[in-house]
Amino acid sequence: MAITVVGSVALDSIQSAAGSVEREIGGSAVHFANAASLCSKVHIVGVVGDDYPFERIRYLKDRGVDFDGVEIIPGGKTFFWKGRYEGDMGSAISEATELNVFQDFAPAVTGAARDSRFLFLANIHPGLQLHVRKNLGDSAFAVLDSMNYWIENAREDLLGVIAAVDAAILNSDEIRSLTGENNLIAAARAVLGMGPSYVIVKKGEHGVLAVSNDWIAVLPAVPLEKIVDPTGAGDSFAGALVGYLDRAGTLDAVTWRKALAWANCVASFNVQDFSVYGIAGITVRDVLRRYDEYREVFQIEGGLDAVSNAAG
Amino acid sequence: MAITVVGSVALDSIQSAAGSVEREIGGSAVHFANAASLCSKVHIVGVVGDDYPFERIRYLKDRGVDFDGVEIIPGGKTFFWKGRYEGDMGSAISEATELNVFQDFAPAVTGAARDSRFLFLANIHPGLQLHVRKNLGDSAFAVLDSMNYWIENAREDLLGVIAAVDAAILNSDEIRSLTGENNLIAAARAVLGMGPSYVIVKKGEHGVLAVSNDWIAVLPAVPLEKIVDPTGAGDSFAGALVGYLDRAGTLDAVTWRKALAWANCVASFNVQDFSVYGIAGITVRDVLRRYDEYREVFQIEGGLDAVSNAAG
Repeated sequence: MAITVVGSVALDSIQSAAGSVEREIGGSAVHFANAASLCSKVHIVGVVGDDYPFERIRYLKDRGVDFDGVEIIPGGKTFFWKGRYEGDMGSAISEATELNVFQDFAPAVTGAARDSRFLFLANIHPGLQLHVRKNLGDSAFAVLDSMNYWIENAREDLLGVIAAVDAAILNSDEIRSLTGENNLIAAARAVLGMGPSYVIVKKGEHGVLAVSNDWIAVLPAVPLEKIVDPTGAGDSFAGALVGYLDRAGTLDAVTWRKALAWANCVASFNVQDFSVYGIAGITVRDVLRRYDEYREVFQIEGGLDAVSNAAG
Repeated sequence: MAITVVGSVALDSIQSAAGSVEREIGGSAVHFANAASLCSKVHIVGVVGDDYPFERIRYLKDRGVDFDGVEIIPGGKTFFWKGRYEGDMGSAISEATELNVFQDFAPAVTGAARDSRFLFLANIHPGLQLHVRKNLGDSAFAVLDSMNYWIENAREDLLGVIAAVDAAILNSDEIRSLTGENNLIAAARAVLGMGPSYVIVKKGEHGVLAVSNDWIAVLPAVPLEKIVDPTGAGDSFAGALVGYLDRAGTLDAVTWRKALAWANCVASFNVQDFSVYGIAGITVRDVLRRYDEYREVFQIEGGLDAVSNAAG
């Protein structure tokens, strides 16, 4: 029982209506591990410079996150991103992107990280994603994330890796752009046709849609009136989802629905603080308490008795 | 047990990717009654010309819809709208709007229509809506629909009638425009502050959000891969919602959630055919069958056992 994630380990400077942080820990692999480690053992494969503040991720190591696969480039600088959010915080406005050591990232999965039951290919060049997948073989259940940049600029590579994974996670805009389908269910079915057995569409404030050949799941987001920092929400969602699936050990429709609900709850903590701190301080019990509130908003006990009685 | 609806009775020419219809029956009051009459007795208050094809709504009379409150103007022409849908069908492109006899609509609620338990003020000038509400007094539970045009051009009148109703139904764009709040829950709470006890936000393909002072409900739309004609979906949703509430006879949180789920199912039939025909031919049993499929996509039986067992 373990998960290997390949992706960015970064430092982020972020500004939103709620405040700002400077050079705080971030990156898709770290946000993923932050959430997944609530459920499972996580191996991170990434790269940083020797400026990386390892003391700040000590709590992740305590939660079972293995940083041995994070290469440290002497004299190198860690991937740095600066962005801000306005209005409904639907998307970030990038102010600076310094790839630094991440520019030459050549992921090498070694040791125990090769034996994980799940592999998460975070948002990196799809050619690299496919390289990792091929290098590891098909034994792990592979989940992919991507972004519009690769859809527009590396479409063939992206189609190649989509064909090689078990599940793809995309947001509404991405899946519409990838498939040319406006209807999200039709778009998800189109991606199923490209190879994966499961397609998950992140709809932001509107929650999540998941489609397999046998079932559809649609779950609302946890209702939140105030968002501090949405950075990493998608990776936290993916981490919690894969973490739950790994912990459950089954992939039936009921387990998927529960995993999606769990992931929505975990991701809701992510957006309530900057960097990793919305999730860093919480326990499984905190998430379960939120789940109890969350399910109240959409669970319906019993039938539609007011009309079904009359229908006989 | 009955509902009075005040609104437009129209003829629509509609074009979508699925085909087109010419001068078919439409209008917000008719779409509302079409859905509400699955559950309850409905009185329509409206106006038409003597060109109105009453033979086509005979099935509605058979379902208990009372057209006595629909004034027929001799020599007048019925409200006509022509529009088309493109892309994701999120909004209609109007090609012609001929108000005709609707221009001078002065709703007069008389007879049995005055004693209904529910009053639906469909999308007409908010000044007229308030006039009707005041004329009838507060005994009915009043539900209001509106649109961006009135938010922009008759804001004070709209605020006046919002303060005088029990529930307001708006779509995402409308409630953001009305309140200046991007976050839909915050926007709904802002409208609660204007007077109503319940605020319902229609999110189109993303389903519905409802907020009271005591609870929040968020339910997905019925997943549909193909939409024929979204005209009247909002009014069908409102009709089904109010119909269910009238039939149930209670307004507790559980009943509201069931009413919202029922309304999502009924509205899903509306968009699968042109004009009123998606709902015209169905029975309560058909909707209940769809509800059984619908609830599969978001209902979760039991707890998050994969993690809750470990949390003890």
